[in-house]
Amino acid sequence: MTPGAPVRGFPVSEFEARLERAQRLMRDAGLGALLLTTEPEVRWFSGFLTPFWQSPTRPWFLVVPARGKPVAVIPGIGAECMGRTWIEDIRTWSSPDPEDDGVGLLAATLGEVAGAGPVGLPMGPETHLRMPLKDFERLKAGMAFADATALIRALRAVKSEAEVAKIRFAARAASAAFARVPEILAPGLSERACFRAFRIAALEAGLDDVAYLVGGAGPGGYGDIISPPSGRLLAPGDVLILDVGGVHDGYYCDFDRNFAVGEVAESARRAHETVWRATEAGLAAARPGATCSDLFHAMQGVMAADGAADANVGRLGHGLGMQLTEFPSITPWDRTVLVPGMVLTLEPGMAFAPGTMMVHEENIVIREDGAELLTVRAPREMPVIG
Amino acid sequence: MTPGAPVRGFPVSEFEARLERAQRLMRDAGLGALLLTTEPEVRWFSGFLTPFWQSPTRPWFLVVPARGKPVAVIPGIGAECMGRTWIEDIRTWSSPDPEDDGVGLLAATLGEVAGAGPVGLPMGPETHLRMPLKDFERLKAGMAFADATALIRALRAVKSEAEVAKIRFAARAASAAFARVPEILAPGLSERACFRAFRIAALEAGLDDVAYLVGGAGPGGYGDIISPPSGRLLAPGDVLILDVGGVHDGYYCDFDRNFAVGEVAESARRAHETVWRATEAGLAAARPGATCSDLFHAMQGVMAADGAADANVGRLGHGLGMQLTEFPSITPWDRTVLVPGMVLTLEPGMAFAPGTMMVHEENIVIREDGAELLTVRAPREMPVIG
Repeated sequence: MTPGAPVRGFPVSEFEARLERAQRLMRDAGLGALLLTTEPEVRWFSGFLTPFWQSPTRPWFLVVPARGKPVAVIPGIGAECMGRTWIEDIRTWSSPDPEDDGVGLLAATLGEVAGAGPVGLPMGPETHLRMPLKDFERLKAGMAFADATALIRALRAVKSEAEVAKIRFAARAASAAFARVPEILAPGLSERACFRAFRIAALEAGLDDVAYLVGGAGPGGYGDIISPPSGRLLAPGDVLILDVGGVHDGYYCDFDRNFAVGEVAESARRAHETVWRATEAGLAAARPGATCSDLFHAMQGVMAADGAADANVGRLGHGLGMQLTEFPSITPWDRTVLVPGMVLTLEPGMAFAPGTMMVHEENIVIREDGAELLTVRAPREMPVIG
Repeated sequence: MTPGAPVRGFPVSEFEARLERAQRLMRDAGLGALLLTTEPEVRWFSGFLTPFWQSPTRPWFLVVPARGKPVAVIPGIGAECMGRTWIEDIRTWSSPDPEDDGVGLLAATLGEVAGAGPVGLPMGPETHLRMPLKDFERLKAGMAFADATALIRALRAVKSEAEVAKIRFAARAASAAFARVPEILAPGLSERACFRAFRIAALEAGLDDVAYLVGGAGPGGYGDIISPPSGRLLAPGDVLILDVGGVHDGYYCDFDRNFAVGEVAESARRAHETVWRATEAGLAAARPGATCSDLFHAMQGVMAADGAADANVGRLGHGLGMQLTEFPSITPWDRTVLVPGMVLTLEPGMAFAPGTMMVHEENIVIREDGAELLTVRAPREMPVIG
């Protein structure tokens, strides 16, 4: 087990501070309330942590008034679990209900707390509404909604020290599992067997869950980074990538590591050197006041100088926290200014032959004086399996 | 490893048959096309299997025309993975794009294939739209949408033999892990350590992933069934429940098992006997022609006769397949008629003391002559730990 697991959950003072920040922004935006329907948003305000969201059957609602504590409007099955959070006003109905699956109770609650102001709801990029569209149409007939995407982004992008500690522990545990890869994987194992062995190693290292694991191997390189493992056997000359989203207490690390199976092609070794140096450039550029765009150009500059082609993945990193990927995006167009407490992945990726890419990734938190690594920095040369 | 793992994926003929069924229903409903935005729906038609959906950043679209093969409208990062499915028409954009994150390409595609008919979109119970609401508003301005919830339910509720084989394997592997619980868990272990040990055992038994694991323990019983584990140490007299959603090749089992830690209270043993017998009644009632309501009453009757109180979980089982929970619901109001090929959980739950419940669960497939168990039937008495 990786040492130094932080305390579970958060003190109530953390939720009070989050609410205070939120309500200040809500007043500035003239919102009467916020309506939250998705897992991370509900959890950010309430501390409500359960994998039960995987069941699509029941909607869950949290209403944040402009003044006073949030109100949970939830299925009865969640009352006990929500009752252990700092939320006091918990309103339940028996769900599923084919006639009215919480919409009446939600409308009444919003009517009670929202006053004259519109109800803020995340409607923009990277958001979705987790309730049936038909139910939302009913709700919308009776009240005005305004987009709250920017507000939620502003709140969640900067992490508290308690949040950073959870992400750091997840990253250290996953790093410990990666350190064991040359010992637990070997040529002749199928990709599926490799993934299984890595999952077990990551649990043994202390992760609560390996929620996300993708990657694969191929001779001299791999062709995509979002696929589940195949039955193909690991062979000498392969480059293997494992990209893990590991969870501790509801917070994610998200990074990958590349491995050489025996002797690999010089082109792959050179590509790894390029993305490793691009990451160094990203680490150096990641300071308060710089923008995501600056970070992008710092990393892209190294890759372009080495003649890299576009890997077509759309960005070179992103925010990280309660979700595998969060706002902002490390792209040329994202002018988000970095501030202390932001947690990011640096993820330079490049194509170096037709259908062959190399992607590298680290997790950092922005500090007053620059980037603090949360992951254990990858070695400059790919570790060797077998 | 659990023997008998079925072949990965599906033959193209299975997707052709699914499409044919869908297009027949679409013609009956007068739909010009279907628009699908959520993981299971896109996968059901295409075979596109990736955990990358966990990243909320990018929307993914599948358009099913009334005639001809589905068209994928997806971020470039998914082109390679989608290219390995039977889908041929794959249209990509570089995502994320703050100006137009696929909406223009999607609108053009729908305009091209939907003809005069409205576009079917799941809008009803247990569904949500996985794209930003603001983007949907733009899309809606240019075309008419109709609710396709009933159509999608009709398609997905009946499983093919290949689908059943995947669920059965997941259920058998999880059953094998449960069989090892008395050997791998012991009094004095924390709930978290128990969960970790069970996850590892389930992976060793052959599951691809333990996507869902909830439960907990308490003296003489537990109070809710949706919580992650606590740091509390397992103690003699506890009843422990583990409820697992285990995955094989994108298909879930979902069932729980109860364990007695040493000697437990007579009330808990009696409650287990009651829910076990309620499940027997459910197994006997689960035949083609019976309704979900019939199943509910068969199980509820046994529990009511034993004086059980409502566990407030809203239903006594549900559909199962590509998701942890699917349509239909085993409730008094769900008149869905059972037909061969439906996969269900039977999940009788009851309260037997204030704040104390007992829930039991098995997975079945409906056959011409009744229920076939996919899980290895739980023993009538709770297995003992320690």
